[in-house]
Amino acid sequence: MFAVEVRDHVMIAHSFKGDLFGPAQALHGATFVIDAAFQAEKLDGNGVVIDIGRAHEALKRVLEPLNYKNLDDVPEFAGVNTTTEFLTKHIHDHLAHAAREDRLGRPGHELKAIRVTISESHVARAWYEAGI
Amino acid sequence: MFAVEVRDHVMIAHSFKGDLFGPAQALHGATFVIDAAFQAEKLDGNGVVIDIGRAHEALKRVLEPLNYKNLDDVPEFAGVNTTTEFLTKHIHDHLAHAAREDRLGRPGHELKAIRVTISESHVARAWYEAGI
Amino acid sequence: MFAVEVRDHVMIAHSFKGDLFGPAQALHGATFVIDAAFQAEKLDGNGVVIDIGRAHEALKRVLEPLNYKNLDDVPEFAGVNTTTEFLTKHIHDHLAHAAREDRLGRPGHELKAIRVTISESHVARAWYEAGI
Amino acid sequence: MFAVEVRDHVMIAHSFKGDLFGPAQALHGATFVIDAAFQAEKLDGNGVVIDIGRAHEALKRVLEPLNYKNLDDVPEFAGVNTTTEFLTKHIHDHLAHAAREDRLGRPGHELKAIRVTISESHVARAWYEAGI
Amino acid sequence: MFAVEVRDHVMIAHSFKGDLFGPAQALHGATFVIDAAFQAEKLDGNGVVIDIGRAHEALKRVLEPLNYKNLDDVPEFAGVNTTTEFLTKHIHDHLAHAAREDRLGRPGHELKAIRVTISESHVARAWYEAGI
Amino acid sequence: MFAVEVRDHVMIAHSFKGDLFGPAQALHGATFVIDAAFQAEKLDGNGVVIDIGRAHEALKRVLEPLNYKNLDDVPEFAGVNTTTEFLTKHIHDHLAHAAREDRLGRPGHELKAIRVTISESHVARAWYEAGI
Repeated sequence: MFAVEVRDHVMIAHSFKGDLFGPAQALHGATFVIDAAFQAEKLDGNGVVIDIGRAHEALKRVLEPLNYKNLDDVPEFAGVNTTTEFLTKHIHDHLAHAAREDRLGRPGHELKAIRVTISESHVARAWYEAGI
Repeated sequence: MFAVEVRDHVMIAHSFKGDLFGPAQALHGATFVIDAAFQAEKLDGNGVVIDIGRAHEALKRVLEPLNYKNLDDVPEFAGVNTTTEFLTKHIHDHLAHAAREDRLGRPGHELKAIRVTISESHVARAWYEAGI
Repeated sequence: MFAVEVRDHVMIAHSFKGDLFGPAQALHGATFVIDAAFQAEKLDGNGVVIDIGRAHEALKRVLEPLNYKNLDDVPEFAGVNTTTEFLTKHIHDHLAHAAREDRLGRPGHELKAIRVTISESHVARAWYEAGI
Repeated sequence: MFAVEVRDHVMIAHSFKGDLFGPAQALHGATFVIDAAFQAEKLDGNGVVIDIGRAHEALKRVLEPLNYKNLDDVPEFAGVNTTTEFLTKHIHDHLAHAAREDRLGRPGHELKAIRVTISESHVARAWYEAGI
Repeated sequence: MFAVEVRDHVMIAHSFKGDLFGPAQALHGATFVIDAAFQAEKLDGNGVVIDIGRAHEALKRVLEPLNYKNLDDVPEFAGVNTTTEFLTKHIHDHLAHAAREDRLGRPGHELKAIRVTISESHVARAWYEAGI
Repeated sequence: MFAVEVRDHVMIAHSFKGDLFGPAQALHGATFVIDAAFQAEKLDGNGVVIDIGRAHEALKRVLEPLNYKNLDDVPEFAGVNTTTEFLTKHIHDHLAHAAREDRLGRPGHELKAIRVTISESHVARAWYEAGI
């Protein structure tokens, strides 16, 4: 299996609901450094999984509505805890959708899976990996 | 599959038995930077794999008996080479045990696997991944 | 000149006032990974600048009132932009104060300067360095 | 599954053919930081996947013909785009060949898979993973 | 002294003249990851050294003529070895020029110095620091 | 001022004397990742501070007597605490000596200073900088 992975980041505010979160129940924030890995069994005729520039653009487009936002105010996230784990799947699903719609410069069915990793600090990160 | 991964470290002394190890047969030491990744098919009701704070504590508890030790003197490790690989499984097994005993803040059967990665320098690391 | 540097982090929310900041005028947030470097011309009798454990504790104490906070609501910061640069000096000043009060395990006058570096992402950071 | 991973690097020139590559169609270059991860179900009698020193040497041997080269001039690569993805498989295949010939200090059939990751910058990397 | 530092990268080909360089006399290449640190004694009215977005843009503008190039073919560099050290000063001088022309969003005379660091691999880097 | 910096590492055992060190009074160990930065006002005729290959070799030669050792048994270190800070100066002094003896491929008097940084973990490091 081949993979190509690109990195970008967002800076957001949010708060969590639930005793589990202790002090993180208060409004705070995070820099999320996001790695998106696109996977394929075979390279295309150009010798790539997908073009790295294209991968960067696709990730940036998915991140744009999140960047510099208070996620507590984003209607799409009403009633959910926007945990690091939750956001890995949110980003994955949008990238997978773009892949299925052939917007990554390669037919979506030639891509197999996407893994999204979010580093929230130098000591904690989360990831989600699933098919397209 | 979701994963949440936390990082901690220990500073230990040890020596290896076997010609294979060359100069590492002498008493030397290492800083082991350890990443423990807890994996689950689904997030829990709070939207997490397990709480990151809880994950940090669980890892710290497993590492405590190793930190600032000469592993050659730890009875549990008598007669074994405490290689980086060996220690990845040692830490995995203790974390998996804690998971099975429901000590990670989530029923153990809801967790699927744990991967433990140990970086021993900027140019070498090892990992072990197995079910719970 | 000798230095010993320790790392910790905080996760905060804040917003900026001023057209310069563009989208960062909205409430957003950041993970700030902070490195505090304590500098001295000579090592003490134990062979250290200051004890690394002590340095970690001193930094943690200064960061505690910031962690998991919306900095816009912290009275001490009323009317100022809590930029990365501003916070490097804020943390420096508190650490320098602790040093002058001999709370770092070594007479403050034996320490020369402190540099505080804050990484706000994988592509941007700021630092402030000044005497004690 | 156990893995041991070692890191090295090469500095090469090359160019790509195909509109997809935009400005990268011109002769340019890259530092490729390469991680090779050797995987095995069980540790050997010494408690390792393979010796880390041996792993470093095996990787260095495979990289030597690439280092400080213009890959456009390497006969073996005539007519192909030496993309990051392509090179992950090239390195994998040579390491797998060394494994099968029992040149890694352990019978090749005891190793299961090799993953080769190439970081081409702080924001992009690729990997290839396959059996031996 | 305050500093704000931003990161970007270029991928270039080049060769060196001189026995000192051994195999690097051949045409090869590099990914240069570049950190540019802008330094000032005081923050401006917004609480910044210079705006981070502005800093990123200024660095990108200086790097653009280098990216995806064979530096051996760049007329400006005819007859010089485009070593990592040489390029740190090249980038510094262009950024300092932009500062003096007040193109960084703050009067140039309020900035004191610029340090440019280029990482050419995970084990080697160079920097140049000088006034504006 | 120009600098060129190279990285290497050693894996050592040692113990500390003094209540200050708490659990680190016991025999333990560390991976020390060492960066040595050679500084000069001007580049030489080749366009370098010193050759990077030469810098790597010089650092390796200084580290060799430390690697895979129990520093408590090294006669040269009898009666001293081989703290991270202490070792930064030890390495500096040996590199400065090599520079003064013109063993770095450039007349020693053309080099100005050396800074040695030792990272002992992902959260702690020390450095020493002094003239040659």
